[in-house]
Formats: sequence, C-alpha cells, structure tokens
Amino acid sequence: MGRKKNKDIIPHEAIRRLSLYLRALKWLSRKKIKVVSSDEITKYLNTIPAQFRKDLSYFGGFGKRGVGYNVEALIREIEKILGTNMVWDIALIGAGKLGTALLGYAGFMEFNLKIAIAFDNDRSKAGRVFGNIRIEPISRMKKEIREKKIKIALLTVPAQYAQKISEDLVQCGIKAILNFAPVNLHLANDIHVAHVDMASELGSLVYRLKHKSSHK
Amino acid sequence: MGRKKNKDIIPHEAIRRLSLYLRALKWLSRKKIKVVSSDEITKYLNTIPAQFRKDLSYFGGFGKRGVGYNVEALIREIEKILGTNMVWDIALIGAGKLGTALLGYAGFMEFNLKIAIAFDNDRSKAGRVFGNIRIEPISRMKKEIREKKIKIALLTVPAQYAQKISEDLVQCGIKAILNFAPVNLHLANDIHVAHVDMASELGSLVYRLKHKSSHK
Repeated sequence: MGRKKNKDIIPHEAIRRLSLYLRALKWLSRKKIKVVSSDEITKYLNTIPAQFRKDLSYFGGFGKRGVGYNVEALIREIEKILGTNMVWDIALIGAGKLGTALLGYAGFMEFNLKIAIAFDNDRSKAGRVFGNIRIEPISRMKKEIREKKIKIALLTVPAQYAQKISEDLVQCGIKAILNFAPVNLHLANDIHVAHVDMASELGSLVYRLKHKSSHK
Repeated sequence: MGRKKNKDIIPHEAIRRLSLYLRALKWLSRKKIKVVSSDEITKYLNTIPAQFRKDLSYFGGFGKRGVGYNVEALIREIEKILGTNMVWDIALIGAGKLGTALLGYAGFMEFNLKIAIAFDNDRSKAGRVFGNIRIEPISRMKKEIREKKIKIALLTVPAQYAQKISEDLVQCGIKAILNFAPVNLHLANDIHVAHVDMASELGSLVYRLKHKSSHK
C-alpha cells in the first residue's frame, strides 16, 4: 500500500537518475562485477551515494548495509520499476538528418526500446532503408501507428510541423513523445512529453564557463 | 554585492530553464510580441509563473508588477546572464551519423553557438564537408583546438573512445563538453560536462507510461 502511495510523489529527476543507474549497472555487469556499493556506483555518475540510496528508497530497499548491491538483481529491479523489462516499439516521425541518425543510434536498445517504424513527408524518401527500418510516407502514419498499437514516438520534424504532427500522433494512440524539435508542444496533460534540447544544455554550459572564468 | 553572492547558489535547473525562457522569448519576438506576462510565457513551457519569477529573481527583478516583461529587454538580459550575447565557437569530435546530423542542426545558433571545426578518426572522412564544415583528421585535433582557443566541444564518438578523447580535449584547453556518448566522463572538477542522453529520457517516458496505464 505504502509503495503505491509513494509512487505518486516520486520526483521526475529520481526517475531520470534510475535510468542512469541502470546504465551504470549494465556497464558493471559487462565488466563481470557482481556487487557494488553506493560509493562505487556513484563514482561513475554525477551524483552522490546518499542520493542514490534515497532514489532507491522510493521503491523499497535493495541493498544490504555493509554488503552493497547485487548488480544483476538491481538491474532487474530497476528495469521492472521503469517498465523497460519488456521491449517497447517506437515510431520515428521525420527521417531528416537527425531522424536517420537516430535510426542507427544504439543507445535505445539499452532500454529495450526499438524503433519499429519511421515516417517522412518527403515522398522521395519513402522506401529507403536506414538501419533495417524502411521509411514510410507520412500519409500512412496514423493508420500504421494505430494498427501496430505503438505508444511512443520520436519527433524529429522541423519546428513548424511539430505541433500539428504531435496532435495527429495523439489521435492515433501515441501516449509519449520524445520531442527533438525546438518547440514546446501543447498537448493534453495525460500525454507524456520529454524534450531533448541540446541547445539548452549548451546554454547552461556557456553560463558555467563564463561564470567560472569571470570569477577566477 | 548581493548578486555575486547569490550566483554561487543558483540551481543548475534554473540555468537550464533560463535557456528555455530565452527560446520562448525569441519566438515571441519573431511574432512581434513586445510585452509578456509570466502567465503567458509559462504557457509555452513546462513550468509555472511562480517558478519563472523565482528563476529571474536570482539575477534581479526584470518585470513590472501588473505590466509584464519587455520581450526584447529580457532577451538581452538573459543572453547577458548566460553569456550567449557573444558567439562561441565549438568543436565537434566524431563525424559519425549523430555527429554529421549535428553539423546541420540549426538549434545551436539560437544560443550563438557555432560549430567551427570538426574531427574524425576515419581518414576517409577527412576533407568531406557537411554544412560548411570540413572534417579534419583527428591527429590535428589538439593542435587546432589549441590554436583556435576553442573552449567548448560536442563529443559524438563511440562510447569506448569517449574518456580518452575527453582527456585529450581538456589537455588542449577545452573547458566544457556536451557529451552524447552513453558513458559518464571522469574529468577534473573545473571541466563542465553536460550529458545528452536520449535513452534516459525515453526510460523516464516509459516509466510514466507504464505507471499511468497500470493505475487507471
């Protein structure tokens, strides 16, 4: 009972950090490391042991005091928490430069996410194959996403199309969008949107760079 | 005096949000909107008016109660705060699929960030031109970055090379790295690293998707 109640107040950042812990654990697993302490695992991450323990505590305790965390068991637990213990098909909308780059990006499979279908509004691109995925004309987007019951989309279209296409995606059943277009989408509250915003990251790097150098 | 002191405790997330405000303000500016309230601007963003006012308050007050914010003036103020009121040259390391996609990505210029040079360890790529940038062999990386006094790098190399190359970058004067490789870099504390991690964003989307559907 307590766990269900807790889940509603888990900070978004804690969930993001779980994804980072998962990746670090998978890396440790590939290195054949069986047990890890919160000190050791946070060395690889931009966080501290206390934060790691706190984040895990939202979901129950997984480590043993003085013993550490079993790497394989914690991988399974975090995958269960995140829902990445099963493969999720995703649709990619917009097979431009960034879109086709993502078709070949290996990082998604680490989270059991698989680009299953891709669309572009440029007819000359339809039929071309990138990383095993055939680009389909965007006219078939709604029908195919509905038929394949895909819930997650990567949106890599130009900014001016992003709002309209995201509304179409919601109509055909998409519930979560990873938006790479440099605009904020206005969608119903039950649609989950994450924004990958490289420029803002750079903006904050510039800030820290400037701030540092002007105060040293 | 108070401002300088304050700057040391400004949360990282506030700085990231400043970048989002800046983009929204630039969009409003293109729409010829002169004045905006905190209610209006946060409609376009995933935040609330109180957060917007709080974030700006770290740097002094810019709005007038009941009047709102002058769009152009606030753009200039935020650019000054972030340090994006001048052009920063950046170096791209790794002209693979993601790297070359980024060479054509327009989002950087919104923050006055300009990819000035690009390197790849594949000799067959050297000399090829993407988006006006000629790919240079990586053997010239240290020399050219030092000569051009570039401080910011985009790292789009395969995971296994990321740590070694980032150390080389630091040696030749790079102070800030936007890391796209799915590994955590271990560098001196005065080097600013931001991680663009698409998979983790998707991981948290999956969590919210799963959590939502299993509780409805």
